[in-house]
Amino acid sequence: MVKLVALYRKPADLEAFERHYWEVHLPLARKMPGLRRLEVSRVTGAPGGEPPYHLMAEMYFDDQTALDAAMKSPEGRAAGKDLMGFAADLVTLYTAEVTEH
Amino acid sequence: MVKLVALYRKPADLEAFERHYWEVHLPLARKMPGLRRLEVSRVTGAPGGEPPYHLMAEMYFDDQTALDAAMKSPEGRAAGKDLMGFAADLVTLYTAEVTEH
Repeated sequence: MVKLVALYRKPADLEAFERHYWEVHLPLARKMPGLRRLEVSRVTGAPGGEPPYHLMAEMYFDDQTALDAAMKSPEGRAAGKDLMGFAADLVTLYTAEVTEH
Repeated sequence: MVKLVALYRKPADLEAFERHYWEVHLPLARKMPGLRRLEVSRVTGAPGGEPPYHLMAEMYFDDQTALDAAMKSPEGRAAGKDLMGFAADLVTLYTAEVTEH
């Protein structure tokens, strides 16, 4: 399995971010073709002090080909466009290959 | 479920890091009491360019109480001590609560 990981830093307007994330963005992300699992986590703390992120989302696909196809699909482009509209300055995105689980 | 997330930036000495991580650190982390699942992922890229991390590990526990107990256990302290010895300047640690999966 491979995954697309989105880490969100804490937004200035937490309420507006939460509303948009759950009501608009997450439903768009769920539409990506080939998506096998979507895990969203709320960051709750950090052993060393202040956590660097507020929220993380992990979108699992069968392999890199499926992930690439999902991102290039109309649904993936719509989710990407929405992301850049509400969280371009908050999000860190990367892809990863699950090696141990 | 809750999880402890460890994000590792790319080390200068990749070979030494990999050897220590897989041969020493991961076996120590696996010994934490109450650990339900451990997922390790290799970061493969980023849509926007260079990915900010090299490796990520996610350690799942039933709840925050179990996670706290694991970190305070002798096994958790041993894993933490080892982590600080080989990756103190590379690792970002935080806890998170899984809300959607």
